[in-house]
Amino acid sequence: MAGNSFGKLFKLTTFGESHGPAIGGIIDGCPAGITLDLDKIQADLNKRKPGQSAIVTQRKEPDTVVFLSGIFEGVTTGTPIGFTIENANQKSNDYSHIKNTFRPSHADYTYSEKYGVRDYRGGGRSSARETACRVVGGAIAKQVIRDIEIVAFTASVGELKLDKEAAELDFSLIESNPVRCPDPETATKMETYIREIRSQGDTVGGTVKCIIKNVPKGLGEPVFDKLHASLGQAMLSINAVKGFEIGSGFEGTKLKGSQHNDLFNQDGSTKTNLSGGIQGGISNGMDIYFNVAFKPVATIMQKQETINSEGELVEMQGKGRHDPCVVPRAIPIVEAMAALVLADFWLQNKVSKI
Amino acid sequence: MAGNSFGKLFKLTTFGESHGPAIGGIIDGCPAGITLDLDKIQADLNKRKPGQSAIVTQRKEPDTVVFLSGIFEGVTTGTPIGFTIENANQKSNDYSHIKNTFRPSHADYTYSEKYGVRDYRGGGRSSARETACRVVGGAIAKQVIRDIEIVAFTASVGELKLDKEAAELDFSLIESNPVRCPDPETATKMETYIREIRSQGDTVGGTVKCIIKNVPKGLGEPVFDKLHASLGQAMLSINAVKGFEIGSGFEGTKLKGSQHNDLFNQDGSTKTNLSGGIQGGISNGMDIYFNVAFKPVATIMQKQETINSEGELVEMQGKGRHDPCVVPRAIPIVEAMAALVLADFWLQNKVSKI
Amino acid sequence: MAGNSFGKLFKLTTFGESHGPAIGGIIDGCPAGITLDLDKIQADLNKRKPGQSAIVTQRKEPDTVVFLSGIFEGVTTGTPIGFTIENANQKSNDYSHIKNTFRPSHADYTYSEKYGVRDYRGGGRSSARETACRVVGGAIAKQVIRDIEIVAFTASVGELKLDKEAAELDFSLIESNPVRCPDPETATKMETYIREIRSQGDTVGGTVKCIIKNVPKGLGEPVFDKLHASLGQAMLSINAVKGFEIGSGFEGTKLKGSQHNDLFNQDGSTKTNLSGGIQGGISNGMDIYFNVAFKPVATIMQKQETINSEGELVEMQGKGRHDPCVVPRAIPIVEAMAALVLADFWLQNKVSKI
Amino acid sequence: MAGNSFGKLFKLTTFGESHGPAIGGIIDGCPAGITLDLDKIQADLNKRKPGQSAIVTQRKEPDTVVFLSGIFEGVTTGTPIGFTIENANQKSNDYSHIKNTFRPSHADYTYSEKYGVRDYRGGGRSSARETACRVVGGAIAKQVIRDIEIVAFTASVGELKLDKEAAELDFSLIESNPVRCPDPETATKMETYIREIRSQGDTVGGTVKCIIKNVPKGLGEPVFDKLHASLGQAMLSINAVKGFEIGSGFEGTKLKGSQHNDLFNQDGSTKTNLSGGIQGGISNGMDIYFNVAFKPVATIMQKQETINSEGELVEMQGKGRHDPCVVPRAIPIVEAMAALVLADFWLQNKVSKI
Repeated sequence: MAGNSFGKLFKLTTFGESHGPAIGGIIDGCPAGITLDLDKIQADLNKRKPGQSAIVTQRKEPDTVVFLSGIFEGVTTGTPIGFTIENANQKSNDYSHIKNTFRPSHADYTYSEKYGVRDYRGGGRSSARETACRVVGGAIAKQVIRDIEIVAFTASVGELKLDKEAAELDFSLIESNPVRCPDPETATKMETYIREIRSQGDTVGGTVKCIIKNVPKGLGEPVFDKLHASLGQAMLSINAVKGFEIGSGFEGTKLKGSQHNDLFNQDGSTKTNLSGGIQGGISNGMDIYFNVAFKPVATIMQKQETINSEGELVEMQGKGRHDPCVVPRAIPIVEAMAALVLADFWLQNKVSKI
Repeated sequence: MAGNSFGKLFKLTTFGESHGPAIGGIIDGCPAGITLDLDKIQADLNKRKPGQSAIVTQRKEPDTVVFLSGIFEGVTTGTPIGFTIENANQKSNDYSHIKNTFRPSHADYTYSEKYGVRDYRGGGRSSARETACRVVGGAIAKQVIRDIEIVAFTASVGELKLDKEAAELDFSLIESNPVRCPDPETATKMETYIREIRSQGDTVGGTVKCIIKNVPKGLGEPVFDKLHASLGQAMLSINAVKGFEIGSGFEGTKLKGSQHNDLFNQDGSTKTNLSGGIQGGISNGMDIYFNVAFKPVATIMQKQETINSEGELVEMQGKGRHDPCVVPRAIPIVEAMAALVLADFWLQNKVSKI
Repeated sequence: MAGNSFGKLFKLTTFGESHGPAIGGIIDGCPAGITLDLDKIQADLNKRKPGQSAIVTQRKEPDTVVFLSGIFEGVTTGTPIGFTIENANQKSNDYSHIKNTFRPSHADYTYSEKYGVRDYRGGGRSSARETACRVVGGAIAKQVIRDIEIVAFTASVGELKLDKEAAELDFSLIESNPVRCPDPETATKMETYIREIRSQGDTVGGTVKCIIKNVPKGLGEPVFDKLHASLGQAMLSINAVKGFEIGSGFEGTKLKGSQHNDLFNQDGSTKTNLSGGIQGGISNGMDIYFNVAFKPVATIMQKQETINSEGELVEMQGKGRHDPCVVPRAIPIVEAMAALVLADFWLQNKVSKI
Repeated sequence: MAGNSFGKLFKLTTFGESHGPAIGGIIDGCPAGITLDLDKIQADLNKRKPGQSAIVTQRKEPDTVVFLSGIFEGVTTGTPIGFTIENANQKSNDYSHIKNTFRPSHADYTYSEKYGVRDYRGGGRSSARETACRVVGGAIAKQVIRDIEIVAFTASVGELKLDKEAAELDFSLIESNPVRCPDPETATKMETYIREIRSQGDTVGGTVKCIIKNVPKGLGEPVFDKLHASLGQAMLSINAVKGFEIGSGFEGTKLKGSQHNDLFNQDGSTKTNLSGGIQGGISNGMDIYFNVAFKPVATIMQKQETINSEGELVEMQGKGRHDPCVVPRAIPIVEAMAALVLADFWLQNKVSKI
């Protein structure tokens, strides 16, 4: 109820603050009988890990996941999978300056107003560190829905946009650069720009595109749990996300029905795919694709005026180790959340007909 | 589980197909002791009703809601509120031509694939008629959170965009024109365009902007149930919606943190509001605002090639009574879904601290 | 959340007060593709109906269920099944005497304390009339789990106990007498006793035994949702129920492990069945059996002292039409709740392994 | 969904097998602002701990709970409380003899049938070790509902019954003996009997009585979530429980309404309390009391015939460290589950009226 669980049949519940002893979670509802590749889970975590390149936060965390239950001799048993990830490198003193100060456009103020108390160290529960647990959950979800392929990549950084169609892109190049953009030329520009932004003590936003292939037909539940509605909730629940669009999205609103309709081939596939692989909230077997908008990170290394818990105006300057642009590290999180949604609906669909 | 419920504490469950005897729903979790203004509920329904103007579907439905329980002597009793809305004017024969034919970009094909069976009459459960029940639920939700003001309006139709800031608009003009755009000049252009589109037997998309005022601080639950994530799910669950953005949205991704951060005033309000009234998933007391993208309606009155359930290519032409542009009638639905989200989180927030 | 829903995958939500225009409900999660026998549903309702024999309440209700959605050409479509049952014979004036008076051992006082307001007519939502909706839900659930056989019968009325083992009983005789006891001799004694109790203006309690055959192995979810725990919740949620025991129950607590253990046959069945068909919360394929304790109905036709809403002592005498013993009419309700539990776990079990 | 969570607003989710590295859980929905007494939590755990007296299992476990999140400077923050309890003393080799053998009346067979795979060491997830996590959750729940007093004690062991009314008992004596019976004389008899049973390599069942005082009026939700129905589910979900009765329970079924009704005092309290503090599923402010039936533990130290996974008849003899009677160690578990139910309904009741 308090919003720390995601999914209905394949359910991830997470806990943990940025600067406590550990974060972790429980995956309940993972079917029995799946031989898990634990290395793949750690590999996904490593993609989200801080300190992996020069353009991300330099906090050093091994981010090693430890599984405590639910797996026996490498195979899921149908019982809940508990796991923890140690917080190895909490420099709590980095945060003493914000103990009584509300950082602009952060969750400091709203947590205080809501709960009357907060763990201010490193943003506490509102820290993006929490997303490591989502990556663990998503990595297991991927092994439930093995045939489905989920690929996300950086589609824009600030005004710099990847201007190529998905069909023109070579996804094997995504991991070839720290920006995670499959077009090397654009990636270089983006990287240069992020370095520049960082040197200014500033941050910048961007967008992630996600493409999902080999989706079985029939995933998604009408009415309120349409597949894209749940994907939207999943993405919008990621820190710093401000927008989500599926298929033709906002651009599609400018079209006429006669332009927008996806006409059928005889095998049930469609000639175009402005629908983004979902019709009436249910997957139709075509590729699902969507865009996710990330705002610029609120913590900047410039002086800003703000207020403290006494309502006094104070000046503050960001300290700590932060990302100049979250988008590159958000890629595995977007993929993980997509996997959680799909695994859940894949299970739900098993009970939709007799 | 099967996706026909919305909300956790204030929960709406709906039922009903477009051409069955009635649609309806149950609102469970409405607190006791609220004196309901039933006329306001019907008034909201009337705003969604077909046949209300020349630019919407001409299906005639009285759309009169009948309450069966949960209200005694005008006051909510804390027990579930059951209600029905008769389907008065089902012209089922209008749909015999689609019995075995899958309309392009409709839910016909995906429902058939998912369930193996479907009520093809008028789209059955996938019909936007289902949203009438959401309007009833939302209208009651509004009376739970009386002080919160929710206003939605048409922000674009096709390429025609309302190019004014919220502060420049007079919301009392929204209902002054059939398009539900608060700027009369733009409204006239939009109406003319919709008429033109209709005369072509075509349809067009558009966007809705929603602004929510007087939101208490503290609504929204970290981590997965961020306020804007639930608003996103709510909006994306409405028929024909393809995108959602909150606050600065997709445009905000182009900004730097130093431009995007909302600096505080001493009273905790912010000088700017690019956050859209939500930080860390929790309302901060500033106005919430978001945009919703609606694709063009799939049913067009032009000939289209499609397939039937035997996988044969067939030609079809839309019949029945459809909207050339759903946006005007979507306004009360957007408001209703927003109200459902806010009432739910308002209740949830009552148990967030001791 | 407010407790008007039952089940997770096969979910029944009910609404309705005793003296409103109608009661009803929504079944969400019924799989598509089931050809429903609607007559069987009505037949179950008729078994619960008031006025069916001389030893039950003489309120006359046709209790005809009307289905509004989710069934197309006799087959479930996977969409929610909405239904209503009209309240035909509400004699609301029968209840004006309790408007401000709290009947002893009734829910009048607690509803008032909880909600601050109540629909006092006929007990409102706390009336056993609500269970008619459970019978509808259960009757559909039975058609989901067709091979499972659920039989309930009267096992005791007051001190009069059916002293035969299940194996000695002919269940086809249950409906041969108004008490619903499969042993005609005992049934006659019970009926005579109930008539005597009624002539005294009094009421009496009793117990129901339920036996479930052909249960597939594997139903039930550890840890909190053990099959018998959910059966227990289901039964204890029926009006007037004060106890539940599965298998050897309270008597079994007196035994030693060496006496109580059910030894295996080679095929996995057990030589004895003190476990009641469930081990570790999961069905083992043996018969499930349990007992349910019903207290005497609180409404008696004798004078009792009580208090009113002003806290004054007043004298009252039951009016209206009530059952001297609820047990005979509770039989179909016990069966219905058992069916709801089993259908839900049958669906849940479909996703327990890959 | 998979049954490892308990509660709606105050929700405990647990994980862990008997012989994995650790068990643990997450409490989600604990309100912010509660100063937790961590010693009390550990004290409750110590009451459940193995090895605490001569009449319980001699497995040695420190059972030290480690909190990982949700508590900052001793105060709950409203974020999820994650915790682990190390499995220090897993003698996994004790269980190699049951790897392929199904112990009679255990969950071995049903887990295998359900999941196709199981962690056989020490019963895996079906081990009562899992209940340690419930005790942690319950101990925190008690600190949410501080004014409510929950007391459980041993009411019978085999045929030996505590034959005194609650009013005659001195609850401060419960912890004065290893049986946890408040009547020293009866306790001695029970202890002697348990020692005798143990010396036979046998086990015995018993019952626990629980009394809850200072319950606010209004807890419990009609219809399906009646307070006693949820208490029943809670108790029946504890390992080895076979029965539950509230108030007058099974004995009450023998009474007439004129005997059973609880007449009011002018202050709304009742002269008698056969209802057990709950009417219509809602607490009325009187003491809640109920009995819980525990079967004899299935693991006996005698030879038994059973089958293995090949369906062969084999002989087996219990090894490992087991309880001759679970009842004494079940006392803190019963209290914990009662606390979880009450805290949940206490929160739920906060949103029942405006």
